[in-house]
Amino acid sequence: MARAIITLTTDFGGGSHYVAAMKGAILGIHPEVTIVDLTHEVWPQDVRSAAWILAATAGEFPPGTIHVAVVDPGVGTERAIVVAEIDGQRFVAPDNGLLGLVATRGQVERLHRVTQPQYWRGDVSATFHGRDVMGPVAAHLSLGVDVASLGPAHDGLVALGWTQPHCAGRSISGEIVFVDTFGNLISNIDRGTLAAVPRDAVPTVTCGEAADIDFVTTYADRANDTPVALVGSSGYLEVAVVGGDASRSLDAGVGTTIALRW
Amino acid sequence: MARAIITLTTDFGGGSHYVAAMKGAILGIHPEVTIVDLTHEVWPQDVRSAAWILAATAGEFPPGTIHVAVVDPGVGTERAIVVAEIDGQRFVAPDNGLLGLVATRGQVERLHRVTQPQYWRGDVSATFHGRDVMGPVAAHLSLGVDVASLGPAHDGLVALGWTQPHCAGRSISGEIVFVDTFGNLISNIDRGTLAAVPRDAVPTVTCGEAADIDFVTTYADRANDTPVALVGSSGYLEVAVVGGDASRSLDAGVGTTIALRW
Amino acid sequence: MARAIITLTTDFGGGSHYVAAMKGAILGIHPEVTIVDLTHEVWPQDVRSAAWILAATAGEFPPGTIHVAVVDPGVGTERAIVVAEIDGQRFVAPDNGLLGLVATRGQVERLHRVTQPQYWRGDVSATFHGRDVMGPVAAHLSLGVDVASLGPAHDGLVALGWTQPHCAGRSISGEIVFVDTFGNLISNIDRGTLAAVPRDAVPTVTCGEAADIDFVTTYADRANDTPVALVGSSGYLEVAVVGGDASRSLDAGVGTTIALRW
Repeated sequence: MARAIITLTTDFGGGSHYVAAMKGAILGIHPEVTIVDLTHEVWPQDVRSAAWILAATAGEFPPGTIHVAVVDPGVGTERAIVVAEIDGQRFVAPDNGLLGLVATRGQVERLHRVTQPQYWRGDVSATFHGRDVMGPVAAHLSLGVDVASLGPAHDGLVALGWTQPHCAGRSISGEIVFVDTFGNLISNIDRGTLAAVPRDAVPTVTCGEAADIDFVTTYADRANDTPVALVGSSGYLEVAVVGGDASRSLDAGVGTTIALRW
Repeated sequence: MARAIITLTTDFGGGSHYVAAMKGAILGIHPEVTIVDLTHEVWPQDVRSAAWILAATAGEFPPGTIHVAVVDPGVGTERAIVVAEIDGQRFVAPDNGLLGLVATRGQVERLHRVTQPQYWRGDVSATFHGRDVMGPVAAHLSLGVDVASLGPAHDGLVALGWTQPHCAGRSISGEIVFVDTFGNLISNIDRGTLAAVPRDAVPTVTCGEAADIDFVTTYADRANDTPVALVGSSGYLEVAVVGGDASRSLDAGVGTTIALRW
Repeated sequence: MARAIITLTTDFGGGSHYVAAMKGAILGIHPEVTIVDLTHEVWPQDVRSAAWILAATAGEFPPGTIHVAVVDPGVGTERAIVVAEIDGQRFVAPDNGLLGLVATRGQVERLHRVTQPQYWRGDVSATFHGRDVMGPVAAHLSLGVDVASLGPAHDGLVALGWTQPHCAGRSISGEIVFVDTFGNLISNIDRGTLAAVPRDAVPTVTCGEAADIDFVTTYADRANDTPVALVGSSGYLEVAVVGGDASRSLDAGVGTTIALRW
């Protein structure tokens, strides 16, 4: 059997020893598992960005990978912790919207609530369920424990409401849903929607106050400091500034409107 | 046998290639070992904070884990490098106080000085004993080399003097000993000392200039931007600001006094 | 056979989920491989610094380690991606200078262009060849695929022109070629060149505007805030400020001249 893989997504900050504490808890249960940091630089309590990152990245991992996400402002309250199988990947997270986008884009195959304390740390704190509940549950999953052993079936998932792009005449409009660490502005307009653009059209893009942005294939198609629009590596229309930071240069961010016209 | 685990704690910064150089040195000796970053974001030469992090986190790992700590302003001088077994965990560090708190809280089972160069890098620099001495020594330990082979028994450990909380009448007083990456202010008042508070008491906390802070169970018990006191995930009384940074908001840090009254 | 090791060097930033996407792509092909972050904090598009880091660090890893370097401003253009064997280490990188210094210092044993798409991701984006080409190629190499299967032999490597130190009379002059995360200023004057200094000489160092810097053995030889010159852990003359940041204090950086006189 291939080595099991657990990824971690948190808002703890990359240098946080709390991340290490989660890894210790996991390795204490399954010392052979491979742990990968998905990211720990989610802005504190920014559930939407974490949800976007999970949806963009989880599918790059081999089927069966277990993704633990801990952006958890409701820790210690009655919010559910869930385990889900979606498109062959597995997830452990509070049901606060973290899995909303991955579930919208994919097929939720199994969904259970995490209620069985025999799979948790002996001593569960009120403030750190990543170490005390979610990490240990992921470790047990990686050892072969079935999802159904962890708790009863769960209905639905908090979704957070992700808007869809829409086409009208010779334009497609949407909004920025994520800003990456380079300041690239990533929209909700996917490659499928962009198929509406005729092959011979020369579209331009407006993003917030910035108009007439050229639609190109790759960054190197324009000189440094030029704003460009392109289909990014996750398959969505994004706006970048070549060699620069589009978010800062264009004063744009999550929620900024974007439109492509031809 | 379970895979051996080595953790690394340094003040090199998370992006430092010096961390990678240590990992290369370790993997060159033992390619099968699992290496975990405990943290590399210790403030440069802040031995006390690193000592606190080790004491808070090492015990989360499985017994036998080897923790290498390199916050080493005295590198190249006569300061000793030691290897210790404390409460079933193993440590390799300069004897400059890094192991002081873990040794105070736990049981030092074995303690040796690192003097046998056959377990070091062939070429030892004057400035990077993490790569040249401590990393290789940890790798050899993970392969089964006995602590006593590394050098002679060592007496005592530099302790740095950690103050104890004290109870008087209907109050417990202590001080802030660590500030985490969220700005949470963690004190030296442990759960055992807090057992002195009667079950039906409603205590409030004073931290530096900030008084009347409510004692709660978890962050979500109060609204955003409210200061709260609670028992944190490492078992110590801490002061947080819900959804914020207590260190900044309350202008407090290591050494700030804290008192709980009822 | 020992576990295969792949290191990653990028300018994505330590918290970037793009790093995780590369790891997912690698683990999807070879789940047993050990992945080590060499650094992800290279200044965006700073190919020279990444080249220096590779040359300083790759040799710390066991022979056969595969080093993937993705600082790739020309992504999506006709620049070649190459795979090289140099001094027993293996490298996968765009041929834009990233391998220039490691190739200058070492022996290039094999050098091929990466052109065979059967070793790439099924769907290759125009902007992320780290995930879609270089990561997968490294994973296949780690499984035993031969370098020659990846594409035809390649001639030469972009070198970027690294200047050499030179000796004249009782002085050696060179320049700063790298600034590390502590602000230490690392020059191109290597230990071999320093052998020209007589044993009984007492050299001093000038770095930019700062003169009369003492040449010492280790940081602790001088008090805090004192500039010192010493042979650093990678074997090159460097200027540091004890307990401080030399780059900031001395207003110096890459390209600053340095001279040692006796």
